[in-house]
Amino acid sequence: MSTPDSLLHFFLDTRKHTEAICQPLEIEDYVVQPVADVSPPKWHLGHSTWFFEEFILKPHITGYKVFDNDFSFVFNSYYESVGEHVMRSDRGNLSRPSVEKVYDYRAYVTKAINDVIEKKKDNYLYDLIEMGIHHEKQHQELLLTDIKYILGNNPLLPLYSKNLKEHQEETHDQEWIPIAEGIYGIGHDSENFSYDNELGRHKVYLNACEISNKLVTNQEFIEFIQDKGYQNFELWHAEGWDWVNKNNIKAPLYWHEIKGEWFHYTLNGLEKISTNTPITHISYFEAFAFAQWKGYRLPTEFEWETAQHGFSWGQRWEWTESAYLPYPNYKKAAGALGEYNGKFMVNQKVLRGGSVATPIKHTRPTYRNFFPTHTRWQYNGIRLAR
Amino acid sequence: MSTPDSLLHFFLDTRKHTEAICQPLEIEDYVVQPVADVSPPKWHLGHSTWFFEEFILKPHITGYKVFDNDFSFVFNSYYESVGEHVMRSDRGNLSRPSVEKVYDYRAYVTKAINDVIEKKKDNYLYDLIEMGIHHEKQHQELLLTDIKYILGNNPLLPLYSKNLKEHQEETHDQEWIPIAEGIYGIGHDSENFSYDNELGRHKVYLNACEISNKLVTNQEFIEFIQDKGYQNFELWHAEGWDWVNKNNIKAPLYWHEIKGEWFHYTLNGLEKISTNTPITHISYFEAFAFAQWKGYRLPTEFEWETAQHGFSWGQRWEWTESAYLPYPNYKKAAGALGEYNGKFMVNQKVLRGGSVATPIKHTRPTYRNFFPTHTRWQYNGIRLAR
Amino acid sequence: MSTPDSLLHFFLDTRKHTEAICQPLEIEDYVVQPVADVSPPKWHLGHSTWFFEEFILKPHITGYKVFDNDFSFVFNSYYESVGEHVMRSDRGNLSRPSVEKVYDYRAYVTKAINDVIEKKKDNYLYDLIEMGIHHEKQHQELLLTDIKYILGNNPLLPLYSKNLKEHQEETHDQEWIPIAEGIYGIGHDSENFSYDNELGRHKVYLNACEISNKLVTNQEFIEFIQDKGYQNFELWHAEGWDWVNKNNIKAPLYWHEIKGEWFHYTLNGLEKISTNTPITHISYFEAFAFAQWKGYRLPTEFEWETAQHGFSWGQRWEWTESAYLPYPNYKKAAGALGEYNGKFMVNQKVLRGGSVATPIKHTRPTYRNFFPTHTRWQYNGIRLAR
Amino acid sequence: MSTPDSLLHFFLDTRKHTEAICQPLEIEDYVVQPVADVSPPKWHLGHSTWFFEEFILKPHITGYKVFDNDFSFVFNSYYESVGEHVMRSDRGNLSRPSVEKVYDYRAYVTKAINDVIEKKKDNYLYDLIEMGIHHEKQHQELLLTDIKYILGNNPLLPLYSKNLKEHQEETHDQEWIPIAEGIYGIGHDSENFSYDNELGRHKVYLNACEISNKLVTNQEFIEFIQDKGYQNFELWHAEGWDWVNKNNIKAPLYWHEIKGEWFHYTLNGLEKISTNTPITHISYFEAFAFAQWKGYRLPTEFEWETAQHGFSWGQRWEWTESAYLPYPNYKKAAGALGEYNGKFMVNQKVLRGGSVATPIKHTRPTYRNFFPTHTRWQYNGIRLAR
Repeated sequence: MSTPDSLLHFFLDTRKHTEAICQPLEIEDYVVQPVADVSPPKWHLGHSTWFFEEFILKPHITGYKVFDNDFSFVFNSYYESVGEHVMRSDRGNLSRPSVEKVYDYRAYVTKAINDVIEKKKDNYLYDLIEMGIHHEKQHQELLLTDIKYILGNNPLLPLYSKNLKEHQEETHDQEWIPIAEGIYGIGHDSENFSYDNELGRHKVYLNACEISNKLVTNQEFIEFIQDKGYQNFELWHAEGWDWVNKNNIKAPLYWHEIKGEWFHYTLNGLEKISTNTPITHISYFEAFAFAQWKGYRLPTEFEWETAQHGFSWGQRWEWTESAYLPYPNYKKAAGALGEYNGKFMVNQKVLRGGSVATPIKHTRPTYRNFFPTHTRWQYNGIRLAR
Repeated sequence: MSTPDSLLHFFLDTRKHTEAICQPLEIEDYVVQPVADVSPPKWHLGHSTWFFEEFILKPHITGYKVFDNDFSFVFNSYYESVGEHVMRSDRGNLSRPSVEKVYDYRAYVTKAINDVIEKKKDNYLYDLIEMGIHHEKQHQELLLTDIKYILGNNPLLPLYSKNLKEHQEETHDQEWIPIAEGIYGIGHDSENFSYDNELGRHKVYLNACEISNKLVTNQEFIEFIQDKGYQNFELWHAEGWDWVNKNNIKAPLYWHEIKGEWFHYTLNGLEKISTNTPITHISYFEAFAFAQWKGYRLPTEFEWETAQHGFSWGQRWEWTESAYLPYPNYKKAAGALGEYNGKFMVNQKVLRGGSVATPIKHTRPTYRNFFPTHTRWQYNGIRLAR
Repeated sequence: MSTPDSLLHFFLDTRKHTEAICQPLEIEDYVVQPVADVSPPKWHLGHSTWFFEEFILKPHITGYKVFDNDFSFVFNSYYESVGEHVMRSDRGNLSRPSVEKVYDYRAYVTKAINDVIEKKKDNYLYDLIEMGIHHEKQHQELLLTDIKYILGNNPLLPLYSKNLKEHQEETHDQEWIPIAEGIYGIGHDSENFSYDNELGRHKVYLNACEISNKLVTNQEFIEFIQDKGYQNFELWHAEGWDWVNKNNIKAPLYWHEIKGEWFHYTLNGLEKISTNTPITHISYFEAFAFAQWKGYRLPTEFEWETAQHGFSWGQRWEWTESAYLPYPNYKKAAGALGEYNGKFMVNQKVLRGGSVATPIKHTRPTYRNFFPTHTRWQYNGIRLAR
Repeated sequence: MSTPDSLLHFFLDTRKHTEAICQPLEIEDYVVQPVADVSPPKWHLGHSTWFFEEFILKPHITGYKVFDNDFSFVFNSYYESVGEHVMRSDRGNLSRPSVEKVYDYRAYVTKAINDVIEKKKDNYLYDLIEMGIHHEKQHQELLLTDIKYILGNNPLLPLYSKNLKEHQEETHDQEWIPIAEGIYGIGHDSENFSYDNELGRHKVYLNACEISNKLVTNQEFIEFIQDKGYQNFELWHAEGWDWVNKNNIKAPLYWHEIKGEWFHYTLNGLEKISTNTPITHISYFEAFAFAQWKGYRLPTEFEWETAQHGFSWGQRWEWTESAYLPYPNYKKAAGALGEYNGKFMVNQKVLRGGSVATPIKHTRPTYRNFFPTHTRWQYNGIRLAR
């Protein structure tokens, strides 16, 4: 459990960091939603604030005055237990509340939580606040990837910032890290914060296998494209093959072929592809097809967690072959907070690792990220196993 | 033909008025597109500017430097002959160019056209400029109705302005204005400006009929609702009935039933419905069903044009029974300007009159407005005939 | 008014002819519905029978025993006033009642109506029966065109019959038949049967124009294709252009390009296109674009009706420029029969003439056929005006 | 490996049984496809025949004369490597080839394979033929469930047969069968036939748990409905909740509430629900929600396979919590046969057991059936674990 001082520090830092992510934006950038998966930055700012107001201030702080009663309708995401909310795909249709008003809302709630931390010495509330902070950190990652989509989908391909380096080269030699057959422990078991989906440390039996110490690079993926990997149905799941053809997929998201050369949109603007950096912005379907083409496979999340001491990770979320399922003895929390993870445990794949968009200290070796198999706007990459 | 002075005055006034319409907006309001029919205000500002640049400055003014080459892609509407353009339904996904940049673009083009008017004494260019001014005036009407939709679709129902009165009571007694059977002349034939779709003054044969001197009021429409008009398929076209059921239509657009009373969103915010003012924001399907219910019918556009001296009009566009078709000997202009009207002459209905959103002097007795039969976000009303 | 004998003859002949149309079919052909517009032959057989049962036998013949109570649900088309019915697009999902059962149903109702004609000397019933016969004749045309679609959409392209000649050459020289400016009478006014939409003989004022004495031929349409008519947006309505691109339209329905030569599916199987026969199976959009390309236009239905003495017609329905609207003083019948025509009078175009699929004596110079602008599975052709 | 005699017997028996399943059908029933998942019986008859022709006769039997070259296009299912095929959702639009022709095709290919078995003593061919037989047996199950859907979706609710008993009561007491924590072996390892997805016998580590010896009954499911289980989002996955609301799901497939009592369509026609028989025709989403409501969970496929000796199974496929994923060291076969299983290993759930529709001896304890999470037309039931 954190001390009041460290919690306050953690809280204020997180709130400030969310706003720092938005600092390079024009007002207009806060508003749009080019596809349903991508929420307007304004919405992230409001929603991560509403979470503190709805689950801490309203139910637990006597005399708290709600900032604006209409905001619950606007900034609730999907918490069915909390009431009506704007359809997810309609978030980009709302010009009001204005960005300025949303920042006022943030300041108002930040102040109120600040007061709670300083004045209430209540571990239960501290736990809820810590949960709210981690919730906001998760949204920081979405916020940055959504901003990238908003700008990268604009025909003018505007720059976000020159200061953020999206990728770094993987120049070490490829090696295969062996895992011996046997029983291994999986899941979170320290005192530190974790989500409920990592809990329930348990044993799994693994067969002998090997995992690459290196992420797949752009160069390797270009070879896959040149070898007509996107046209060879034998490499794909049936559902992946439909997805490729229906959406006319020919390259990773943000890639542009200009006069025979590959470029990609990055937060620094349009750049020529650096062949030695890891591939990213691919779906699970593409990761699987690539592995098939290469004659290997993706690791399971258990293999990954077991072998992760042997390689460096954290610059790309890595698709695993594992479906997102509850660990043995998983129990979801009661009420709205119970909606956090459990209800997504179907038809999604686990990703392990972290990315340039992941807030510092927000990930760990047991962290289970998850997305549907067709999603590409996160910084998703490939590590092979065999 | 206008003098250079009067043309300049007309031009600058129009440019200023477009911007005045946007004056009450927040930056965020310029960006959103809640449905495909409704364009972001920012787009109207840019598109009405692009029209001058594309059809006058670029082809006819040597040495003219285009403001930004990417803008043609962003601000072209549908002129297929002019090249690629952003899909209409994607306009609301574009945060850039920023509103500030669009105003810079406007100032730049306004200045350039100003110079053309002052320096080139060229009737052909003057005609094109007059066309561009009328084009911008048409967009002024869409701009205001689109703003109303953007704000009226927002759950916070924000106010646009207290200064604009949307409707006025029709308190005079209902009378039926007779038209005698016979031959009448239809269409524009003065020296003044008109669109190509009004030209070709020609004869039509009308049967004896009568037209109401009064628009249908909210009170009458409430009676239609109370008599279950929306549930009685006998009153509807088959296509209208499908539209009602598929979209769950139960009242005009912007109407809200709150505790048994009818309110509607107006540019002045949410207001109780004034029973003596004309009904508006209804589709052709609803206008037709109402007339059926009342035992009357809608007038044809020829009846309307013939009888219009006998009643006051201009506060509501009035649905007619006439399909939007070319007049005898209609010729569309060559090239991109020819795309202006002719290509919409199918599956739409003619509306006559004008509305609170119509710029001053922009309408006339021969003016043919047109919309698809399900559209409701314009200020559309009903005048009966029998 | 017909005599009982002639009515009986007319009735039995019509019933027999419907079944004769189905004679070449396999049982399987009676069941399928490849697109929503095309109903299974079994459904036409049942529906034209249900019409007699529902509107004559059930309400007017005491003691009549309904053949099967479930059939009303299955064979009602769209008569909302008569109750629930199977969704139009679900007709092809019904394997039962079997074809044999439907023929039993036909025999049962034919017998019952036969008895009514012989035993009840009641002009009101005779009028209703005559209406039912004409209704069945309309369905005969749809039945044949639907069969053509079912077979022509099958990859095996099966033959319907060798005995039916779909088209005949137009070998006479092209001439332009003039219409003098002036007032003309339009609409049905004889004692003979007509639909309500033709009634209300009235005057229209026509401008001077000319109509071709010849239908547009396949040869001319091939020239349109070769001149890239389908790729030239200037020839199309905006809605037509969307339709062409969304559906990837490159030729009339049933046309196949095989090794550089044009073939089309006919009721006699796949045949090489005969260049001198009239073009058919085109939408209004295509008819309009062709006329634009040729520098002419389509006639209005009034021009067509006025000039029709001057040319031969009846082998192809001819698209007109006229929207399908009520004539002055049009009154729709009360109740379900009133649903017959009036509720379709929006967003459709009038076709005049007749086709190889039209039952003998079913058409006349005042007959107003109508279809939505994108439909192609009827025998629709083009006659030009200028 | 089977002897020629036993293989021939197995082959001929299987071919005969497929046709016996169709014996109660009318010709019309062979043709329709009410939803994309449900194929016309005619198609199953042809496809299971095409499989033998395509993979055995065409490539391996010199001098074999293909029955009809067009059939490959019509009866290929999804084998991309074999060439073009009719879109799955268009199968119900094909009236030809006729049912009679398809039976001729069956007889022709049955004879040819019969000859191969008798004349070629070739183990490789025998293995392929055995594969083809198992393929046809899998289609027998789909054939019966598709027939049930075709008839059960018809408003006349026709009887299939009085001789087939769909369900039997589970009257034994509920008990919980314990599984001790530890390592267990999973997967097929005998000499007998199995699919590639069961192969690779391997170890898994299970936590202690208990599995019910009884399937969930209709009575228990009615209690779930009465307790508003379908309205309580807390019981559902987010994707399941969307599915329930979008499709307005209120009960299992084929259930009808008539005057307050529950009936369901069975192959014996509409029947009152027998409360003691196992629930069936539910999706994975419903199985999961039911388990949540009951306070238990679904077993994994490994728990099921480990405990299956302790309970009787085979009258219902049982949803497991396991995603359909490859076993360790899974290798898919090369070429078209490799498309059999591997390409479906994403976004589906494993079912274990068997059903009334499963051909005798077609299932076994290691058999892995799989379907997407929303499918209900199979005989799917629920066994709980804790």
